[in-house]
Amino acid sequence: MILPASLSEILEKHAGDICGHKVELKHTEPVSGGCINQSALLVFTHDFTAFLKWNPSAPPTMFQREADGLNALAATQTLRVPRVFSWSDTSESGSTPGFLMLEDLATTDGNSTIRSDYDEELGKELAALHALPAPYFGFPHDNFIGSTPQPNHPRETWAEFFLQQRLHPMIQRLRGSGKISADQTIWASQCAEAATQHLREVTEGPVLVHGDLWAGNVMRDGSGRPALIDPACYYGHREVDLAMTELFGGFSSRFRAAYETAHPLKDGYPLRKEIYNLYHVLNHALLFGGSYWSQAESILNRFRD
Amino acid sequence: MILPASLSEILEKHAGDICGHKVELKHTEPVSGGCINQSALLVFTHDFTAFLKWNPSAPPTMFQREADGLNALAATQTLRVPRVFSWSDTSESGSTPGFLMLEDLATTDGNSTIRSDYDEELGKELAALHALPAPYFGFPHDNFIGSTPQPNHPRETWAEFFLQQRLHPMIQRLRGSGKISADQTIWASQCAEAATQHLREVTEGPVLVHGDLWAGNVMRDGSGRPALIDPACYYGHREVDLAMTELFGGFSSRFRAAYETAHPLKDGYPLRKEIYNLYHVLNHALLFGGSYWSQAESILNRFRD
Repeated sequence: MILPASLSEILEKHAGDICGHKVELKHTEPVSGGCINQSALLVFTHDFTAFLKWNPSAPPTMFQREADGLNALAATQTLRVPRVFSWSDTSESGSTPGFLMLEDLATTDGNSTIRSDYDEELGKELAALHALPAPYFGFPHDNFIGSTPQPNHPRETWAEFFLQQRLHPMIQRLRGSGKISADQTIWASQCAEAATQHLREVTEGPVLVHGDLWAGNVMRDGSGRPALIDPACYYGHREVDLAMTELFGGFSSRFRAAYETAHPLKDGYPLRKEIYNLYHVLNHALLFGGSYWSQAESILNRFRD
Repeated sequence: MILPASLSEILEKHAGDICGHKVELKHTEPVSGGCINQSALLVFTHDFTAFLKWNPSAPPTMFQREADGLNALAATQTLRVPRVFSWSDTSESGSTPGFLMLEDLATTDGNSTIRSDYDEELGKELAALHALPAPYFGFPHDNFIGSTPQPNHPRETWAEFFLQQRLHPMIQRLRGSGKISADQTIWASQCAEAATQHLREVTEGPVLVHGDLWAGNVMRDGSGRPALIDPACYYGHREVDLAMTELFGGFSSRFRAAYETAHPLKDGYPLRKEIYNLYHVLNHALLFGGSYWSQAESILNRFRD
């Protein structure tokens, strides 16, 4: 894998700053995983390694916002996330692609220790993240869910936030992409409004959430510890993270039991879970089309006035 | 979106052959969806449109095998699939990327008819596909599940086929990529062997299966009819397609009821479903890492001797 020369130079300079002495990029190894960006392991001299994501057509601020999210999670000292080494948006001339250089979690080492309490550790650490109060429902800046823009303007209540900053904008995007008709847009918006009435019963305050907690975003690091990547952070209701762990599989009952022991879920979660996951189902309808719009219709239909 | 000039010329020639007169490529529109290839809607003169997938680094035969699978499904006259217009593997010089030009299903028309019986239609059509006997467990050629090679060598029994052509090769790939250790490989192989003993109870004969039936591979065409794309076809047990519809969501209970009315599932399906979906969970562990390996471990652990 060959990186643009301009990018290699920048990475060597940043890596040198981190190491405190000059290093050179010896080679790169392609890394699988992820649909949006290209990624590679960077192997520098002096045994320094780093993980690189890059994308010449990334939306402006995408890597910056991912770095912000990782730093926000790291600051809680609850969950392991890769350290952010450096990032840049795509240069205006287009000559240097946007990138994010992260700590290498050494996940590809097949001989890494397998901790018998890995699943419990993940559950406990997520519960610890969700125990820290945040100031409001929203976030200091907008970001992305995958490559889809995600607005985070603060709203007075959680129900308002989830309707106006999550479901409505996603329904509008589906309309804008031509995936749904004008009539479907109106119908879906009305159902979304009815659905989010159920969120008025939420009495828990905002906490920092990962925001995109599917199985592909949980890694086992070189020492066998769980680590989270690719966040879409905001201050929300903790149940959004739990709901997403149930959407596409990959999380064990031991993970869940450990979370609930530390921080039991409240009555009404199964219903709210459907509303929270509707956001991701709509995003999948936008990205992949297919039966995801039918699934969204079924969920929306349950909440028709 | 700009295509390589060499590719545009080839596409114009093939489109001309299909239309029976000369056409020119007016413009292309990027289409979202899919993690592996780039895709676009091709708009030619004379109102001829087509859907294009291309990938300069596609494995040899990938597009050819996808075309074969679509043609095999089309030949059954049970399910709608896009007509294959033309395809090519990446040229040896690398100057022309591999591509697949398909009928435009007009899925992006948000005003397309919404049939009230869409879900039932999909269920009935899949049952009709699964009612046609196939000659053996296997397929005339290997193909791909996503971008992962998928061997299809015929085996005497379904249990042997699923162990030797599905689970074992995927476990070996995980080992080859360094995602699991030598000890984990041996353990997983033993569990897989124990698991596939349960497939000896299958008495149904082979049928053509889609092979990659997740929600992103089901489209609604311009007339509101379901259509399937991206197959990973082989002659297998029909339950593999049903199992996958349950893995990542997106299929309604109405779809399922319509299928089961036409072609009821046999006792023991819930257990076999876990074994069939293990194949896709292992592939996700290979592609995305993360908690998918943990999920695979949990499933494998149930079948330990």
